[in-house]
Amino acid sequence: MSGAIEEGKGKAIEAGRSGAILVVGLGPGPDCWVTPEVSEALARATDLVGYIPYVNRCPVLEGQVRHASDNRVELDRARLAIDLCRQGRTVAVVSGGDPGVFAMAAALMEALDADPAARDLDVTVMPGVSAMQAAAARLGAPLGHDFCAISLSDNLKPWDLVARRLTAAAQGDFVIALYNPASKARPTRIFEAFDLLRSLKSAETPVAFARAVGRPDEAIVLTTLGAADPGVVDMATLVLIGSSETRLVERPGATRPWLYTPRSATSTAS
Amino acid sequence: MSGAIEEGKGKAIEAGRSGAILVVGLGPGPDCWVTPEVSEALARATDLVGYIPYVNRCPVLEGQVRHASDNRVELDRARLAIDLCRQGRTVAVVSGGDPGVFAMAAALMEALDADPAARDLDVTVMPGVSAMQAAAARLGAPLGHDFCAISLSDNLKPWDLVARRLTAAAQGDFVIALYNPASKARPTRIFEAFDLLRSLKSAETPVAFARAVGRPDEAIVLTTLGAADPGVVDMATLVLIGSSETRLVERPGATRPWLYTPRSATSTAS
Repeated sequence: MSGAIEEGKGKAIEAGRSGAILVVGLGPGPDCWVTPEVSEALARATDLVGYIPYVNRCPVLEGQVRHASDNRVELDRARLAIDLCRQGRTVAVVSGGDPGVFAMAAALMEALDADPAARDLDVTVMPGVSAMQAAAARLGAPLGHDFCAISLSDNLKPWDLVARRLTAAAQGDFVIALYNPASKARPTRIFEAFDLLRSLKSAETPVAFARAVGRPDEAIVLTTLGAADPGVVDMATLVLIGSSETRLVERPGATRPWLYTPRSATSTAS
Repeated sequence: MSGAIEEGKGKAIEAGRSGAILVVGLGPGPDCWVTPEVSEALARATDLVGYIPYVNRCPVLEGQVRHASDNRVELDRARLAIDLCRQGRTVAVVSGGDPGVFAMAAALMEALDADPAARDLDVTVMPGVSAMQAAAARLGAPLGHDFCAISLSDNLKPWDLVARRLTAAAQGDFVIALYNPASKARPTRIFEAFDLLRSLKSAETPVAFARAVGRPDEAIVLTTLGAADPGVVDMATLVLIGSSETRLVERPGATRPWLYTPRSATSTAS
């Protein structure tokens, strides 16, 4: 596997032991957002498979093998987990956030879909805290009512489909969480997305750029759709765009107001 | 507060101590999905405020006061938390799932919005695992690509807006997670929602009814939009409706196939 790094000598595998794949998420940053279920899975795994920075966040255990790989090789990682499981190993496939939200669970399912002989393997997916939830908690309650999550990456889908979904999200007046908003390979997509949303939604719509929430370099920008500078967005940024009901609550002495979407809505106007 | 139940004698409050409000979520069921951050918050709170079944899930601590209330009094609960905080108490406001997703964080923000004098209180929102994530983990990876979450409750918003959002979700070909899909007060809404979606999406679209995932009475039904019987849905059910890409992976010997949405999409046709 290109870019793979393997460490550790490997735990002894019991004879005849059947393997397992544990698909886990570490949450967006601090250990206090890792569920006990996931901590237990990491402790009993013989092998860790994942993107380098996520594997690096896992506790180092004597005898556990760490298969850390570069970005954009999700299917290779899933196939490696399947191979190791067939050898009787207990493999934790590690994502940040929730493995079920724009992460490794779908890649593993794709690998199983393509490999019928692997479908009787013992696979467990474990939920976790996703980036939009961490951002929402820090901001107040912007996801307090109907919302959608869209990946801006067009590596695996045509941009037309992204644009269609942004348009539908605006027409439905959803709160919008944007994942994978920018990268070196496609730095202009976030500008295109904002141009499209500006043509469909009020310039006064609240917008938050929530970068690395829960990590030491956390940085949050609260702005509006009209005033926002998408140039500040990077791949560690979760972008939240309000519905027509999303509002600010000014706070004396705080660095910024609360941002929230009320549970009630009075208007159906688009 | 109507339906409120108070237990415990109350921890001693230090003189001059300023209070705090900790908005926490217990996840959908088992303790292994409660984050360490939330467990720590529950351990240091002097008071718990929440809907009866959620408060009942919290560990009983000597001297901690439990303010458990009936359903549909979210704003009363938020105001009680504010009152207690002003008295110097450390109040955990308890939701199931993630407090930021169709839960108490938005209600607390509404109460702060309406009470400017309360806005300097020390409030922390903590993210958690929401019901759609637990359901998705059990099913495979149905939320593996763009999705939206819609509450079917029309207690606080007009049904026209729910219908508009369902329509937009179909037009955008999102995976759809439906929260609060049914209740005694509005048993027909889930039928209306399915009628609408059937007019907009393929009858072959995969549908999952995921009831009480992670709890002893967990029950999952995998079906299609055409064949689904919405009559099995209750308020403990999370309803997932696929996009045009969502698919099944048959598994030998398993009780049901995996359900997942691939990371790639090739078509933009509606």
